[in-house]
Parts: sequence; C-alpha cells; structure tokens
Amino acid sequence: MHLEQYARFAPYLGGLGLLAALAMYVYLKRQPVGTPRMREISGLIEQGAMAFLRREYMVLTPVLLAVAVALSLTRGPGIAVAFVFGGVCSVLAGFIGMKSATKCNVRTTEAARTHGLARALEIAFDGGAVMGLAVASLGLLGLGVVLNAMLDLGAAAGITPVQFTNFAETMAGFAMGASSIALFARVGGGIYTKAADVGADLVGKIEAGIPEDDPRNPAVVADNVGDNVGDVAGMGADIYESYVDAAVAAIAIAATSVTIPTAARVNAISLPLGLAAAGLVASTISIFAMRLFKSGSPATALRAVQILGAILFLGIAWWLVGTLPMSLNDGITANGPFYAIAAGSVAGVAIGLVTEYFTSDKPVREIAEASATGPATNIIAGLAVGMRSTAGPVLVICAAVWVAHQVSGLYGIGLAAVGMLGTVGITMTVDAYGPIADNAGGISEMSHLGPEVRTITDRLDSLGNTTAAIGKGFAIGSAVLTALALFSAYSSAVEAISGSKLLLDLTDHMVVIGLFIGGTTPFLVAAMTMTAVGRAAQGVVVEVRRQFREIAGLMEGTAAGDSARCIDIATRSALREMVLPGLLAVSMPVLIGGVLGVKALGGLLAGTTLSGALLALFMANAGGAWDNAKKYIEAGAHGGKGSDMHKAAVVGDTVGDPFKDTSGPAISILIKVTCVVALVFAPWFARLGR
Amino acid sequence: MHLEQYARFAPYLGGLGLLAALAMYVYLKRQPVGTPRMREISGLIEQGAMAFLRREYMVLTPVLLAVAVALSLTRGPGIAVAFVFGGVCSVLAGFIGMKSATKCNVRTTEAARTHGLARALEIAFDGGAVMGLAVASLGLLGLGVVLNAMLDLGAAAGITPVQFTNFAETMAGFAMGASSIALFARVGGGIYTKAADVGADLVGKIEAGIPEDDPRNPAVVADNVGDNVGDVAGMGADIYESYVDAAVAAIAIAATSVTIPTAARVNAISLPLGLAAAGLVASTISIFAMRLFKSGSPATALRAVQILGAILFLGIAWWLVGTLPMSLNDGITANGPFYAIAAGSVAGVAIGLVTEYFTSDKPVREIAEASATGPATNIIAGLAVGMRSTAGPVLVICAAVWVAHQVSGLYGIGLAAVGMLGTVGITMTVDAYGPIADNAGGISEMSHLGPEVRTITDRLDSLGNTTAAIGKGFAIGSAVLTALALFSAYSSAVEAISGSKLLLDLTDHMVVIGLFIGGTTPFLVAAMTMTAVGRAAQGVVVEVRRQFREIAGLMEGTAAGDSARCIDIATRSALREMVLPGLLAVSMPVLIGGVLGVKALGGLLAGTTLSGALLALFMANAGGAWDNAKKYIEAGAHGGKGSDMHKAAVVGDTVGDPFKDTSGPAISILIKVTCVVALVFAPWFARLGR
Repeated sequence: MHLEQYARFAPYLGGLGLLAALAMYVYLKRQPVGTPRMREISGLIEQGAMAFLRREYMVLTPVLLAVAVALSLTRGPGIAVAFVFGGVCSVLAGFIGMKSATKCNVRTTEAARTHGLARALEIAFDGGAVMGLAVASLGLLGLGVVLNAMLDLGAAAGITPVQFTNFAETMAGFAMGASSIALFARVGGGIYTKAADVGADLVGKIEAGIPEDDPRNPAVVADNVGDNVGDVAGMGADIYESYVDAAVAAIAIAATSVTIPTAARVNAISLPLGLAAAGLVASTISIFAMRLFKSGSPATALRAVQILGAILFLGIAWWLVGTLPMSLNDGITANGPFYAIAAGSVAGVAIGLVTEYFTSDKPVREIAEASATGPATNIIAGLAVGMRSTAGPVLVICAAVWVAHQVSGLYGIGLAAVGMLGTVGITMTVDAYGPIADNAGGISEMSHLGPEVRTITDRLDSLGNTTAAIGKGFAIGSAVLTALALFSAYSSAVEAISGSKLLLDLTDHMVVIGLFIGGTTPFLVAAMTMTAVGRAAQGVVVEVRRQFREIAGLMEGTAAGDSARCIDIATRSALREMVLPGLLAVSMPVLIGGVLGVKALGGLLAGTTLSGALLALFMANAGGAWDNAKKYIEAGAHGGKGSDMHKAAVVGDTVGDPFKDTSGPAISILIKVTCVVALVFAPWFARLGR
Repeated sequence: MHLEQYARFAPYLGGLGLLAALAMYVYLKRQPVGTPRMREISGLIEQGAMAFLRREYMVLTPVLLAVAVALSLTRGPGIAVAFVFGGVCSVLAGFIGMKSATKCNVRTTEAARTHGLARALEIAFDGGAVMGLAVASLGLLGLGVVLNAMLDLGAAAGITPVQFTNFAETMAGFAMGASSIALFARVGGGIYTKAADVGADLVGKIEAGIPEDDPRNPAVVADNVGDNVGDVAGMGADIYESYVDAAVAAIAIAATSVTIPTAARVNAISLPLGLAAAGLVASTISIFAMRLFKSGSPATALRAVQILGAILFLGIAWWLVGTLPMSLNDGITANGPFYAIAAGSVAGVAIGLVTEYFTSDKPVREIAEASATGPATNIIAGLAVGMRSTAGPVLVICAAVWVAHQVSGLYGIGLAAVGMLGTVGITMTVDAYGPIADNAGGISEMSHLGPEVRTITDRLDSLGNTTAAIGKGFAIGSAVLTALALFSAYSSAVEAISGSKLLLDLTDHMVVIGLFIGGTTPFLVAAMTMTAVGRAAQGVVVEVRRQFREIAGLMEGTAAGDSARCIDIATRSALREMVLPGLLAVSMPVLIGGVLGVKALGGLLAGTTLSGALLALFMANAGGAWDNAKKYIEAGAHGGKGSDMHKAAVVGDTVGDPFKDTSGPAISILIKVTCVVALVFAPWFARLGR
C-alpha cells in the first residue's frame, strides 16, 4: 500500500478516535455524582469554567477573524481558511477536555467515597483520556483534512515546486490557527488560575487564617475553576499546538527541502500523518490497557501505560518506515527516518526524567534546607535549582537533533519532533489526570467528606503534582524541538521561493541583531505575565475582603459567599491581561520580518527559541521545585506545617506559582507561535525581496 | 604623521599615565588619616584586602603558568608570553586600584570629619582616579608593547597574510591573560564580598539585632574588605579586560578581515591604539577638571566630568580619523570609523541611562509597593523589573552594531566597542569612587564619629550606589559589544586561515547545537556562583556565632572580636568556590571547538553571548532595583525601617545581593572569556581541520 493512502485515511481514523472519546465521555457522565452538596459545588466549578471559556472565545473570535482577513489579503484565501480551521480545532480540543474534566472531578470524589483508591484513579484517568483522545484525534482529523485538500488540488494541477511551497504555507496556516488560540488560552488561563489561587491564599490562609479549600472562602471555587481553565484547557491547547506544529514542520520540510527528490516528496509528506495515526492507535490501546494495571500503585500504573504506548508507537513506526517506497538521497540512510523518530521519542522520556529529578529529589531537599535561614535563602536556592535544571534538557535536545540530522538530515529533525509527540494521546491523558485529581480533593474538602476520602484524593493529587511537573518539562522540551523543526522548515521554505540557499550566517550583523531582539522577547513576556498575575490577584483580594466584611455570617459558615462574583472578576482581569503579551508574540515576527528582512527574522527565531527554552525551563522547574520543597516540609520535615521554615518555603512556593503556571508555559508557546507565524509569512517576505 | 607612529608612541604614553597615577597616589597617601581608632580599622581592612589579593594570586599563579605551558605547546611561545604579560598587567591594575582604595577610604572619612562634603568627595574621587588612570595606562602600555613587538617582527619578516593572523592570535593571547585573571578575580571577589556581607547581616542584623557596620560584629571588617576585593579589584579587572578585549578585537579584525586592503592594514591595526591614547588624554584632563565642579552637587560633578571626558575623546577621535591615510574599500565610508566610534560611545551613555531608570525610578517604587503583600510579591516584582530591563540595553547595542556596520563593516563593530570603552579612565574613576565612599561610611560608624560625619559619608555613599548600578550596566553592555566584536574577529581569523568564508549558518545543525550548549553555560555559572555565596556565607555565620558565644564582653563592647579569622574564613571559601565556575568558563570553548569543531564553537560564542547578556542584565538590574527599593523604604516610605514592608524589602535585597555582585558580573566576564579563548584557539582548530 502506498504511503499516501495512509494519509488519505487519516481523517477517518481521527473521526473514529473522536467517537471513542465521545463514548468514554458518555460512560463517565453516567457515573454517580454523590451528595447534593457535591453536586452543587461541582456545578459551580463547571459553570465558572464554561463561563470563562465562553467569554474567552468571545474575545478571541474577532481577533481570529481579523487575522483571517489580513491573511486572506496578504497570503491568499486558502491559508486564511486553514488558519480558521486550525483555530476551531484548538478551541474544540480545549472545550472537550474541560467538559470532561469538570464532569469527572466530582465523580472521582464520589468513587473515592464509595469505592476507594483504584476506582477513583480509574475515573480520573478516564476523564483525562477523553482529553487525550480528543487532542490526538482532532490533530489527525485537522491535519488530514488540510493535507488531503492540498493533495487533491495538487493532483488536479499537476504538482509543481511552487505547489509544494503552497503546501507548506497552507499547512503552516492551519498550525498558526492552532497556535494563536493556544497562546491566548495558555496566557489567559495561566493568569486566571494563579490570580484566583494567589488571591484565595492571600486573604484566606494569611489574613483570615482559614485552611486551603475552606468553603467559607468565596475565592476557593474560582481557584478550582482555575485548575480547569489553566491546567486542562490551557495545557491541552498547548500540547495540541506542539503536536500540530511538529507534524506541520515535518510536512513543510518534506514539501520544500531540496535534499528530498521530487519523486519521494508525496511519501515524505505523508509519513508524519501516518505516524500521527500510529500514535493514536498506540495511545488508544494503552488507555484501555490501564485497566490491567489499576490494582497496583497509581504511580506505577501511570508509568506503565506511558511506556506501553511508546513501545507500541515505535513498533508501528518501524513497520511504517519499512514499507516506505521512498528513495531519498544520501542525506537519509536506510531506516534513518525510524531512528530520527526514536531519537525524539527517547528524548521526550529523558526530559521527563530530568524534570522529575529537579522537582523531586535532592534539589528539592536542598531548597527545603535553605529555608532554615529564611525566605531569601529559600528563593536563592530555588532560583539556582531552576538555572541548573536547564542544562540537562538542552543537552538531550541537542543529542536528539544530532542523531536525527545524522540519519535523515533536516527532515529528520522534523521527524524527531513528531516522534516526541507521537504518543500525545496517552501523554495528554496523564497530564489531564492531575487537575482532575486536584479538583476532586477540593470538592471533598468543600463537601466536608472527612479525612478518609481526603486521604485518597490527596494521594491521587500528590501523584498528579509529579505528572504535572513532568508534563511541563515535556511541553517545553517538545516546544523547543518543534521550534527547531519549524526553523528548519522556515529556511527550507525561504530557499524554495528565492531559489538560492538562505544563509542565516551568525557573522552577518542583521542575523545577530535579529538574534538579540528575539532573545529579549521571552524576558518581556515573562515580565508581563508575572506582573499580570499580581494585578489580577489584587482584584480578587479586594473582592474577598469585601465579602468577609459585608456578608454577615460568612466567617461563621452560616451564610454563603458570592463565588460567582470572584469568578467573574478573575475572568475579566485574566482576559484583559492576556491581550498585550499575546499581541506582542504574534506581531513580533511580522514586524521584524517586514522591517529588517528574512535574515533578521531567522535570527529572531533562533534567539527566541534559545532564550525562551532556557527561561521556560528555568521558570517551570524552579516553580515545581519550590512547590515540592514546601510539600516536603508540610509532610513533616524540618518542623512541618506552621514552622518558620515552612513559612519561608511558602514564600518560595508563591513566587513559583506564576513561574510554573503562567510565565513558563506562556514562553513555551511563545517559541512555537513565533516560528509558526514566521513560517506563514516567510514566503511572502521572500517574494517581497525582504 | 603616519598613524603607525601613534601606536609606536603608545607604550610611552601609557608609562606617563602610570606616573600620573603614582603621583596622585603619593599625594593622597600624605593626607591625614584621623584618630587612632580610624587608623586601626582602616589598617584591618587594608590588611584583609591585601591578604586576599596575595592568596588569590598564589592560587592563580600555578593556573596561569600551567595554561601558559599548554599555550606554548599548542599555540607557540609568543602567544604564551603575551598571555602571561596580559595576566600580569591585569594583576597590577587590580593591585594598584585596591592599594589606593584602601588608603583613601579612611582619608575620605577624615576629610568629611574635618573639612566637609566637598573635600571628602575630592579625596574619594581621586582615590578612584588612581585606579582609573592605572587601568587606562596599563591597557595602553600592554597593548602597545605587544603591538610594537609584532610590528617589528612583521617588518623584519616582511608582513604576509599569515603574519597578520599571528598578529591577531598574539594580541588575543594577551587579552586571554587579562581575561583569565579578571574572571577569577571577579568570581572570587564577588563570592567573598557577598559571603561576608550576607554572613555579617544574618547573624548581626537578624539574630543579634545590632545595626549595620556595628563594630561589635566581627564580620563587619570582612564586609568592608569585600567592598574592596569585589567592587574595586574585581570591577577593575573586569573593565580592564573589556578595554583590552575591545582593542584586541578591533586589531584582530583589522589584521585578518578580507574587506580591508593590505595597504591599509597597518593603519587599521594602529587606529585602536591611537584611540586608547586619545581616551587616556581625555580622561586625565577630565579627572583634573573635577576640581572645577566640586563645589556643586556631587551627582552633577560626577556627571559633568564624564560628559567632558566623552566630548574630549570624541573630539580627538574625529581628528585622528581625519588624518587617516587609509584607503579602505567600499565597506567603509568617509569618516565612517568616526561614526562607528561615536555609536559605541553614545550607546555606552544610553545603557547607563536605561540602567539608572530601572534601578532608581518608577520600577523601584513598584517593587517597594509590592512589598505590601509580603516578601513573595516583592520578589516577583523585582524579578519582573529585572526581566523588563533587558530589552533597552539590548536594543541600544543592536542599534550601535547596525550603525557601526553600516559605516565601517565588521571593523566598525570593533571600533564601536573601542569607542564605548575609550574613556575608561574616567568611567573607572567614577566606578571605584563608590566602594571608597561606602568604606568611608563603614569606618565612620565603626569609629563612633557621630551622625554629622555619617550624614556626609551617607550622602557620598548613596551617590556611589547609583554610580555602581550604572557602572554594572555599562560593564555588561560593554562586555556584550566587545563579545560581538570578538565574535567578528573570530570568524575573520578562521576565514584567514582556511582561506574560505566561515559560514556560521543557523540552519546548520552543528551551529544550532553549539548555540544551545553555549546558551546554558551562563545559567550554570549563575547557579554555581549563587550557591557558592550561600555556602561561603554559612562559614562566616558559624564563626560569628561562635565568637558571640565564646568571647566574653563582645556584645557589651568591652572585648574585641577576632575579625582576622572571619576574613580568613571568607577568603578561603571564596578562593575554593571560584575554581569550578572559572575552569568551566575557560575550558568550554576549547572542549566544544576540539570535539564539535569551529562551527559549533561559533554557535557556542553566539549562544553564550546572547543568554549571558540577558541573564547578566536581568540579574544586575533586579539586584540594583531591590537594593534601592529597600533604601527607598528606609528613607521613610511605606512605614520606613522596621515595618513589615521593610522586612519584605530586606528579603528582596538579600536575594539581589548575589544577583548583582556575584552572578551578574561573573556572567559578564564569562561572555568575554569564552570569546577570547575561542579567538586564541580558532586558528589552531581551523588548521587541525575541525
């Protein structure tokens, strides 16, 4: 069977995957919800989360349409349509994931209450699986539809080199749609979740002296809503984007690279789609295989399904590459594509392990010990751990790039990114499991279910913290590898237009200027998002203080707080604050490319990728390490909760919150958006002679 | 007169400058020292500082000799000799500056006690001027001697292209000597000064509840020693290195660039030396012109002499460029070299202004206000300010690079760096003034001279804090521009050897791998130096606690503490901790160049320069802003000293200390060292075919 046929089949497989996700969702929705109080609280969380999404989409729709019109005028209607389609797919992925998460949190609590750990784990995992399947399926569906449309148009016109460039541009348009939505979702969700969290903690824990998740605190529901809009919808859009971008980068390189012979082009273009299909199949099998592992420890179970998924994926990939009738040139060795894919896949695992080490092991104990001399030394230790943690993942990515290039040239770098993200279905499932478990704990606390339920949900939640930290490391790692692949695609596309090799020579001063301007962008976005959290949290603080003051009986527990108003305030300020960093990210490559030309733009991509990778890893890992150092002390070390060392550790954790949940993820998306936008506009700038 | 003759004359002018510095030193030494108590304390500080330098040199001598032997074997004896000579010049510059600073601190206090503000300012300024003149003169002398030796050898042999490459390599050897010493001096001094500072504060201010600079605290003398070894000797070696590196980069480009016609080469090589001579003359005049301004406000006086120096320098530079009998090719426009020089000079001033804004104005008030909600929000605000502050200086440097390249090609970038550092004599004078004023305040406190003296020294000190922050910004800015010039020299040198254009193409995966590895190095060095401060401070803390416990009457003021032991402990741990980051910095380019080749090495330079520039600016400016936010509150805002907001601000200041005085400066040197080492080894790697 010709490889192109797999690509032809992709959208249908994507549709099937969506059906599986739907079936799982229907099954989960039929599970018991528990007491009226639980139903009420989970209802509030669901309403708040959906209200946030609705309003976010209302803000984004005009932006999306305006960009689409601009794209249609400058880059043609085909790209504009692909762009809108990409945006809609991303919105759908976020929506489905959040819908499932907000249904499953309370059902997880109920399972813990009535059945115990194993069943609660199953529900939370399945809730995540709806998201995992949706992301993987929508990726396959969207990419497949666009690719098939392009192949049809190409076949009708008789494919020419210019056609292939159009190919790359249109796929990039689709990716740009997904990226733009992801950027705003991630930034907006990230600001929302931390504004609510910090706001709830500042007034509740510190001023009023009531515990975390206490139902008297009217910002607690907003905090739980935040877990869903930030960690589910935001993370989902983020990973969806990486997945789509990686495939698009590989396809764009295949379509434009001069090292791939024209005869092999259609096969080279189809392989990434075939791999995405393989990943969906592997993920689906391992999601259902979870039932085999659920009786063991939850940590082992989650790890086992991920390893199973990776093995299945690589197995199918080996077979796929073997059936390739491609005759590529010397740059690509026999079975080279497979080794490139495997390099990416292994690199993803390795980055997860490095992240786990820095956010759980010796480094965390060091931070806890540094708290003995107060908050300042805790902060210094955490910052140092974050900085140290950048080297490992970067070296792993360098190694993967080297291997991939060695066996398959530029195309190999694209395939490595696809390999890293191949099992996105199962990775995303595990990522989405975390916030569901976290919410389940909050609901059990607010519903006064007692310590035995809370012990189960705490255990699930603590595992969720580890998977969340690993997930963040993976998200950044995949963003960097994807960005490098997009970067290769960028140079390849510019060369295809201009007909000569694009030299992004570092001794060319325009490249250096672009490199430096690109390097500052992540620092600016980090600064903007960090201060945005502070401003947004301030609004929540003022409102909670007002309610404590004005609502009689609130502190005594006889009257209910107005949590809807807290949610509303957090929503409004998050949406307001996301606009500026979002626009900066999207407009930077257009501005630099338009004013300083394609060489400076190339430098910009490299600079943003490099400084963004380092900054995002630094911030995410420092934040994770601070969080766990606090938890380590809370678990009884160094005097436990309430001790001076614990207070110092809380300061670190508070600094770490926007680090790991707002700025770090925002930068990891910034990297990809910059590269994707450049890829969409590159041919235009090249044709304009910039 | 042929421009070469200026170069011939350079060493003599350098010698004259040294004599002027000596005369000033002798004059200052004759000024009155004050009370026996003042004499005693300043004696302790001087002894401690000199003991540190002596032991540091003892550690560095074998390192220097070992590297010299290695250089002699791999790169030839000429380069090894130049290397040792560069190291010796750097040691001398640090030694002279520190000798002068430790003599002038107490004389400044005495002048404040007996004559008042104007005379105290004069003494502190003159004390700095000894250092300023020494740095500028030693630069001119050292560069002049090596250049003359090379010109003689070249003339004897009949200069050939290979000769010119030797030229570049030997000059780079000299710069590498200066760089290596500077690196260790900066890292060792930076760790020492903050270990003593943090150690003294943690036990004294926080545990024992006694004020800053209280004579009962046995670590206070060590703290004052630290100002000298870190801010005088360390900063001096740092700026000396920038100065030498900038000239060497311009000379190396002139010697190897294919765009400079052979007939114009000797003139192009001589121009940087002529500019250094011009800078020394301009600086000397403006140092003596200080007497005209001293009756006005100290801040205005310091600014006036710097502006005067810059105007004089640019005036002489205009004339020098006008006399150029150079006929360069189209890349260099008429008077182009002058505009390149001016671009660098103006950029230096602009970076200073940006730094001043971020460490004094609205950003500082924002950080102070963020302290209302505790230390965590203070930290977040400070980190955000530091991140935001990176964009301005980077854009300024980009603009300078663009202008310089526009008017004079690659050579212009070298000249811009020389232009920025041209008036190093006066810049360094103002930088060294700060720690002298700081020490003068400490001595007046420890000698119980009463509030009226302290008011004067406080005023001088607070001005010193501003000049120090600006000086740090300038040091980093000049390091980045110098690094870019060295980078151009690197590519130019490799091309001259290999005979073909060196392509550091960002689409070449080896360049990207080098870029990423280079990017992580500053993060590792930052992490290492930050934790080193913590470990070294811990030793001081333990010792001070022991003395408080074991020495009867210490707290009552009837017995004296053993400050020599504190100094000894801080010295030993600082010297131990400086080795690892120092070796990492020096060995990285050799390792990457040797294993991965010249393309990866080129990427490494770009990556280290980019991420180092951003990280150094972030850390130095965040640190300065935290410091001033604390001082702003101490001056009475938000409840003043002792309030909760002040406590939160102290946490920020403590985090900022290693940021601005240890890690930030260490990274700024790392950037230069990496580039210089690469420049020394580049031809070797190129000949080996790496």
